[in-house]
Amino acid sequence: MKNVVSDCSIESIMRVLSGRWPTLLLYYLKDGTKRFNELRRDNPTVSHRMLALELRKLEAAGIISRIDHDGYPRRVDYGLTEAGRRLVPLIDALGNWWEEVEAERGAAPPLSQVA
Amino acid sequence: MKNVVSDCSIESIMRVLSGRWPTLLLYYLKDGTKRFNELRRDNPTVSHRMLALELRKLEAAGIISRIDHDGYPRRVDYGLTEAGRRLVPLIDALGNWWEEVEAERGAAPPLSQVA
Repeated sequence: MKNVVSDCSIESIMRVLSGRWPTLLLYYLKDGTKRFNELRRDNPTVSHRMLALELRKLEAAGIISRIDHDGYPRRVDYGLTEAGRRLVPLIDALGNWWEEVEAERGAAPPLSQVA
Repeated sequence: MKNVVSDCSIESIMRVLSGRWPTLLLYYLKDGTKRFNELRRDNPTVSHRMLALELRKLEAAGIISRIDHDGYPRRVDYGLTEAGRRLVPLIDALGNWWEEVEAERGAAPPLSQVA
């Protein structure tokens, strides 16, 4: 694990990915670009404001890009960047880890030990 | 990426890892067990209450275990479980991803595109 903690890249990425929405948005964008309203329809419990904030945060982190189509009516699509696509399997690995641990815990004694 | 979202393992793991402290605590425990006060000394800005909450959350998730030593004075150590040790390289991969992207952005044009 990183030795330098202060300007720690792990802290930075976790700040971007923390909370419910970032990894869900990654999931919804993994198969192609989507419009704002499509993403809202996919995530009915997210507010307009929250979705806009999360998309801006992901864009600033280089995970998604915002494609502003010329013409009328105005059209804006969101899509994973190349870096964002590289992030997907890393997030999947966390999900797989969780499932493995859940399966193991299904069969394991309680964690706290008395030495 | 996982297809089943509702009881999504990714959402579960991100709920555990979200925020500043979980990944930092993983970092501090990766080389061996530590006592509560040692962890507080490593993270001077974390409150007693917050540290206790985060440790309990990590323990409930099967990432760390709490070793309660018999005898007086009472001694409690915290350490990574085997599953917790398997999580460390996955978190490192996120940190490495961040550093790669930062390096690439150092040389890349701004993200927003006009199609």
